[in-house]
Amino acid sequence: MPVVTEHHVNFYDTDAMAVVHHANYIRWFEIGRVEYLRALGITLGELMDDGYVFPIIEVEAKYHESSHFDDVLLIETTAESLTRVKMAFTYRILRKNDGAVLVTGHSLNVFTSQETGHITRLPDKYYAKLREGLRQEKNAKSES
Amino acid sequence: MPVVTEHHVNFYDTDAMAVVHHANYIRWFEIGRVEYLRALGITLGELMDDGYVFPIIEVEAKYHESSHFDDVLLIETTAESLTRVKMAFTYRILRKNDGAVLVTGHSLNVFTSQETGHITRLPDKYYAKLREGLRQEKNAKSES
Amino acid sequence: MPVVTEHHVNFYDTDAMAVVHHANYIRWFEIGRVEYLRALGITLGELMDDGYVFPIIEVEAKYHESSHFDDVLLIETTAESLTRVKMAFTYRILRKNDGAVLVTGHSLNVFTSQETGHITRLPDKYYAKLREGLRQEKNAKSES
Amino acid sequence: MPVVTEHHVNFYDTDAMAVVHHANYIRWFEIGRVEYLRALGITLGELMDDGYVFPIIEVEAKYHESSHFDDVLLIETTAESLTRVKMAFTYRILRKNDGAVLVTGHSLNVFTSQETGHITRLPDKYYAKLREGLRQEKNAKSES
Repeated sequence: MPVVTEHHVNFYDTDAMAVVHHANYIRWFEIGRVEYLRALGITLGELMDDGYVFPIIEVEAKYHESSHFDDVLLIETTAESLTRVKMAFTYRILRKNDGAVLVTGHSLNVFTSQETGHITRLPDKYYAKLREGLRQEKNAKSES
Repeated sequence: MPVVTEHHVNFYDTDAMAVVHHANYIRWFEIGRVEYLRALGITLGELMDDGYVFPIIEVEAKYHESSHFDDVLLIETTAESLTRVKMAFTYRILRKNDGAVLVTGHSLNVFTSQETGHITRLPDKYYAKLREGLRQEKNAKSES
Repeated sequence: MPVVTEHHVNFYDTDAMAVVHHANYIRWFEIGRVEYLRALGITLGELMDDGYVFPIIEVEAKYHESSHFDDVLLIETTAESLTRVKMAFTYRILRKNDGAVLVTGHSLNVFTSQETGHITRLPDKYYAKLREGLRQEKNAKSES
Repeated sequence: MPVVTEHHVNFYDTDAMAVVHHANYIRWFEIGRVEYLRALGITLGELMDDGYVFPIIEVEAKYHESSHFDDVLLIETTAESLTRVKMAFTYRILRKNDGAVLVTGHSLNVFTSQETGHITRLPDKYYAKLREGLRQEKNAKSES
């Protein structure tokens, strides 16, 4: 099941074409995955305190329609793959008032040791929560 | 031949992992294509004055290595396809001091009429310049 | 009475000192005044549709304490002066969980005709709403 | 003598009023003071490696004129006060092609120990450089 977060478009999110600048959606994907992890009981702050960082390896976005100042957006985040070493998410950003899909996208992050800089495997403390999240996604899919 | 632009990493470009925040590279791809077009004699300002906008349709980035405050980056932009209706570019962002490739990416924009909001075909005034750019890319490739 | 808006600090709001980058609070003052105006029944979009823009003339901020990723902030906006030609606001940004005042500030904007670029006087349609807002501020002060 | 840095206005620096968003100038003041310190032989990276951070305590900006996509700006930074515990700068941001002063401003930062979080005094290693910078400012003023 996707985790859904709202974002109200700020004036400073727009550019001289009077629409939201496209790089902002890449930032909002981050809001989406942060909220997804929070819904599983994981916060980035706790990961960092434990010595893990989570650099992004790839991101892609397809832009279907523009959004404007004052639009209310829904950031819909779905887990694609959550393992001890990486997390992949897909995103849909919708305009709340009519449900139009504005942007779709995908990201991949890897868990890395802050100390060594190398990819590392998350301990059970975190992995159990991630696995539970992915299990829910699979159930949601098989039911739909 | 790629067009190369320098960017000196600002403190405000970094995040709490003490590296450049990944969404900034998407902004810097924009710097790259603006400079590419400028090298062909086309400015976005002139396009907009003539009633054209150029929404982005897709962007993707692969992150190979981090960069840090004070790094000097090279944004290398190459035309992949330049037609009357769209322009596709590929990017490489390198660290200047050792040539390491940090980020690679791709983008696609379409030319759109500001008045109608529909995709439109650029007039010869612009297209001749774009075609010349692509011709140079092809020559550069066949020579290499 | 101040208008209060929440902002949840995003990872991309932080910098390499692991705190929120100071320029972001200037952006969040904007969120504050947008919400203040909305509470009075005025939206920036409507102003722009009517040919008014509202360039900022001055801003200042004092930083008392840092904030961090995942903090929930309260943006408290109070009208200082609202006339047909300008609007001045003061701001306090607080950390929600303990009420600590992190940033205080001030801004001044002037109403300008998009057509002429000159400072202009707002028509009654808007001014009546602004005056009502300021009246409430004064009452709130005299009661306290 | 002011240290002068160029900034070429990016498309992503603009907002829906088709001018540079005002919060960006606050970021560019940072570019100015970074370059000022660099001119004295001090880099923020070295300060941080030595355990010093330099939180901003206040910033203010007055906006005189707008700037637009593709404008080349000059960021002029002058030291106002440089002591072992704080640094104050003033800024002027000008449009290069006609010298118009667009924004003027001021900032104050304090040197803080990363370990204790308290204001601290810079060692001679840095202070000698700062003092030399301020001496040059004073000479420049008395000569003018």
